[in-house]
Amino acid sequence: MPDDIAEMLHELIVATRILANEKVLDAFGHVSVRHPHDPKRYFIPRHRAPELAEVSDLVELTLDSEPVRPTEFRLYSEKVIHGEIYKARPDVNAVVHHHAHTVLPFAISGRPIVPVFHLAAVVGPVPFWDQRDEFGDTNMLVTKPAEGASLARALGPNWMVLMRRHGATVAATGIRELIFRTVFGSDNCKLLSQAMAMGHVDSLSPGEIKLTAAHQQRPPSTNRAWDYWVRQIEKAGLMPAKAASRSASKKNAVAAKRAAPKSAKKSAAKARSKKRR
Amino acid sequence: MPDDIAEMLHELIVATRILANEKVLDAFGHVSVRHPHDPKRYFIPRHRAPELAEVSDLVELTLDSEPVRPTEFRLYSEKVIHGEIYKARPDVNAVVHHHAHTVLPFAISGRPIVPVFHLAAVVGPVPFWDQRDEFGDTNMLVTKPAEGASLARALGPNWMVLMRRHGATVAATGIRELIFRTVFGSDNCKLLSQAMAMGHVDSLSPGEIKLTAAHQQRPPSTNRAWDYWVRQIEKAGLMPAKAASRSASKKNAVAAKRAAPKSAKKSAAKARSKKRR
Amino acid sequence: MPDDIAEMLHELIVATRILANEKVLDAFGHVSVRHPHDPKRYFIPRHRAPELAEVSDLVELTLDSEPVRPTEFRLYSEKVIHGEIYKARPDVNAVVHHHAHTVLPFAISGRPIVPVFHLAAVVGPVPFWDQRDEFGDTNMLVTKPAEGASLARALGPNWMVLMRRHGATVAATGIRELIFRTVFGSDNCKLLSQAMAMGHVDSLSPGEIKLTAAHQQRPPSTNRAWDYWVRQIEKAGLMPAKAASRSASKKNAVAAKRAAPKSAKKSAAKARSKKRR
Amino acid sequence: MPDDIAEMLHELIVATRILANEKVLDAFGHVSVRHPHDPKRYFIPRHRAPELAEVSDLVELTLDSEPVRPTEFRLYSEKVIHGEIYKARPDVNAVVHHHAHTVLPFAISGRPIVPVFHLAAVVGPVPFWDQRDEFGDTNMLVTKPAEGASLARALGPNWMVLMRRHGATVAATGIRELIFRTVFGSDNCKLLSQAMAMGHVDSLSPGEIKLTAAHQQRPPSTNRAWDYWVRQIEKAGLMPAKAASRSASKKNAVAAKRAAPKSAKKSAAKARSKKRR
Repeated sequence: MPDDIAEMLHELIVATRILANEKVLDAFGHVSVRHPHDPKRYFIPRHRAPELAEVSDLVELTLDSEPVRPTEFRLYSEKVIHGEIYKARPDVNAVVHHHAHTVLPFAISGRPIVPVFHLAAVVGPVPFWDQRDEFGDTNMLVTKPAEGASLARALGPNWMVLMRRHGATVAATGIRELIFRTVFGSDNCKLLSQAMAMGHVDSLSPGEIKLTAAHQQRPPSTNRAWDYWVRQIEKAGLMPAKAASRSASKKNAVAAKRAAPKSAKKSAAKARSKKRR
Repeated sequence: MPDDIAEMLHELIVATRILANEKVLDAFGHVSVRHPHDPKRYFIPRHRAPELAEVSDLVELTLDSEPVRPTEFRLYSEKVIHGEIYKARPDVNAVVHHHAHTVLPFAISGRPIVPVFHLAAVVGPVPFWDQRDEFGDTNMLVTKPAEGASLARALGPNWMVLMRRHGATVAATGIRELIFRTVFGSDNCKLLSQAMAMGHVDSLSPGEIKLTAAHQQRPPSTNRAWDYWVRQIEKAGLMPAKAASRSASKKNAVAAKRAAPKSAKKSAAKARSKKRR
Repeated sequence: MPDDIAEMLHELIVATRILANEKVLDAFGHVSVRHPHDPKRYFIPRHRAPELAEVSDLVELTLDSEPVRPTEFRLYSEKVIHGEIYKARPDVNAVVHHHAHTVLPFAISGRPIVPVFHLAAVVGPVPFWDQRDEFGDTNMLVTKPAEGASLARALGPNWMVLMRRHGATVAATGIRELIFRTVFGSDNCKLLSQAMAMGHVDSLSPGEIKLTAAHQQRPPSTNRAWDYWVRQIEKAGLMPAKAASRSASKKNAVAAKRAAPKSAKKSAAKARSKKRR
Repeated sequence: MPDDIAEMLHELIVATRILANEKVLDAFGHVSVRHPHDPKRYFIPRHRAPELAEVSDLVELTLDSEPVRPTEFRLYSEKVIHGEIYKARPDVNAVVHHHAHTVLPFAISGRPIVPVFHLAAVVGPVPFWDQRDEFGDTNMLVTKPAEGASLARALGPNWMVLMRRHGATVAATGIRELIFRTVFGSDNCKLLSQAMAMGHVDSLSPGEIKLTAAHQQRPPSTNRAWDYWVRQIEKAGLMPAKAASRSASKKNAVAAKRAAPKSAKKSAAKARSKKRR
């Protein structure tokens, strides 16, 4: 596997652990990322609680949400949420579906989400989608391509969609932007509901949303927040081990040199000399 | 003790720790499971805080909530909640009684609980029971068989009953279904109360409840959530040690055989023979 | 120091750590206990955050809240809360003053506290006290004997008093009863405020309060809860080391006898003989 | 660096970690302190999440918020908040800008903050500032000197200012007073919003505010709370290592001299020389 993809898949798992640690994900929900070299494919963990997913649990799916290679893994029944959004939105490279407790009261009450503080400007307008409208009584899971496509239409050109009596789906141009939008989108819902209880809500103006979102989506801002959340999962013991990529092997080889007996050092040296070429 | 029962009792303790870690149980409350081979008996811990209960604290009771074998243990004064529900409901194999802070506001206000998001479809309709109605002023504990039987009648064919000014009791066909229903039932109450504060509640339709509950009660869903909660109690240092069952001993013996030098094996054999005396 | 007092002072520190861990106490607040052999004295920590107090920080005060022996320690400015309640109420042996966030909204809004679930029956009626009524504008601390006596009058024959814009004071016949009443009194406030938000509150009847309080104040109930809270502070790393009492020293000596080589035993004996001087 | 400044910069980092641990700061926000010997300068971390900042991340800025010495570090875009307040208020020696979730509902709803319990008397009156009023649609960050100066004017002679749809800024005569005011100011907002939900708020009288603030701002009170918060960051593993100041180095050298045998010193020297290679 090329190093940049290994790096990206590791970041996907880190992102997933961050959302678990920030209580956006629990036993359910999932995060995916589009293949950086082949826009017709995306990566998503096999069917398991997101906090428990490792890089080795990731599968590569087509935009029809079929596995690229045969797999024994059980897959998420709602994977079409991801595939259909990647189909409809070429600008989207990362997607999360979740049931955060901060967001669900809006999905239940039908009250609209509006950005109420600067860090939530990146959320933008949040349309509603009700599976019942088009599909009647269902098991409430988005499992059929037609259901995923309907959700993608409701999302439209926006970055977050609220699913009535179910949860939310958030999209972004990349993983770090996705986590920033999802966490501050969650914070925004918590703060908005508290302001609603006080009887008055003052939301951002369209001009403020535009100017502030543009600023906050830049790397200095998303990276500063990313570093903070990484520290939080480190403290929680959730930081995933980094799979040995080719360049990581080099570093390991150096470490091995210090610790290992002579014979081991020789083969490590070979590994290194290969790398230098 | 047969291996399947040892396995089940360990799972009962794991389930209890999960509910403690998820803040459904605190110093009070209790979880029980029906005997898998003798439907006229059930297992429940002796009188102590559920988080502290070990497999060795479990006692076997008849459906009249009398100990099958003489015991020095103090028993829960409210054990009849379990016995009377097992009597009335042959389809129920696991019961929890709790005072979760998410649920109590409904037991205090008398506002009805309705499922408001897909994962809570498994809760279904939740009737009320008020000990005062039939028994007048009491010490508010369900200690007499008649009180337990009255509660079981209020539960009827449902899976959860709200006890006014007291708490709730939840039933299920098995331990993992019980934990799923209890945790997401608790989440449902928290989310419902927040939506109520927003002035509008949109609940699941009867068709949605039926279809969604059927899906969520299947093992892929309950096991995925179980694995997640098990990880949470592992992180919290609450995972109970597994008591050596007969086959586990065999496995350990095999493992020991592989790992241990001869002398160690001999002293292990001695230790075992000592234990048998 | 007699062993029973050493035991009791250790329990006082354990109780204080429990209330810190349960978020009833933060940087402020204090817990005291009456001297078991001399009802004209009580023990309370020197001026420091309650979570940080050790047995060695305890001072012995008269009921006028003057140190029995000269001390270099700074004392709590509000110690008269304890002394004046011990004076007025011979049946009270333990007192806590706190500013728990669950209770303060009632002290601010003036809404009455009523027991709304069975475990809070032990709280009973909760009168209000407003320092401003009798003393006008002050620094809001209960520092003068007259202020403490006024608070004790407001408490009357009850077990908890709410102090407007300030906090609460809780009394009990012993330490474990005090912690039980304080923690479940705090839970009661949290649950009551949530039921209030739902628009209806159903509280315990006078008969239920009487019968239920009588049951819950018995040792099986208070000890079960105590053991649970002790486990919580153990998990949080807050369990205070037990000071070596005389009989504990004896036990240690026996243990040392078993474990230690001869020379070590000799120096241990020397250490003991030094201590006795 | 003189020892008193080293001490103060360490305290600034401790203060920042305390506010991170108390959930006042997250990925964003910043704390600064005025130079004790040169009132025309102040210290503030480089651009990074406050919890992650170390003493080595601190930069020294003029009151125009320009670096005193050239630096490669990226700086906070909102540093002018600090510089302009230090300019306008010679009595202010420490400033924090934050987006605490307790405070933001007031910044969103526009409801006024009033002190509702004794420990929050130190907050005093809290004016509002809306960047939109003077500057129209912006990226909502206080990045221009004119914006910082406008905020400082809104703060006036007070100690806290609410920034609409953004957050709050708090000032103090020193670091410990700043942390006391910020944490209890945050608590006050949480408690006030709960009392508001109960339909009645009883706030401190002007006389109570004056007398109580005077008492709580004295060192016995601020130090007692400081010690408590330090213990909390120690438990959370957030206590920053103390940089070796000149006198600390001396002490360490003395300690090393006492503890280490000659051979150990030699191997330590070797280890150091190895590292340099």
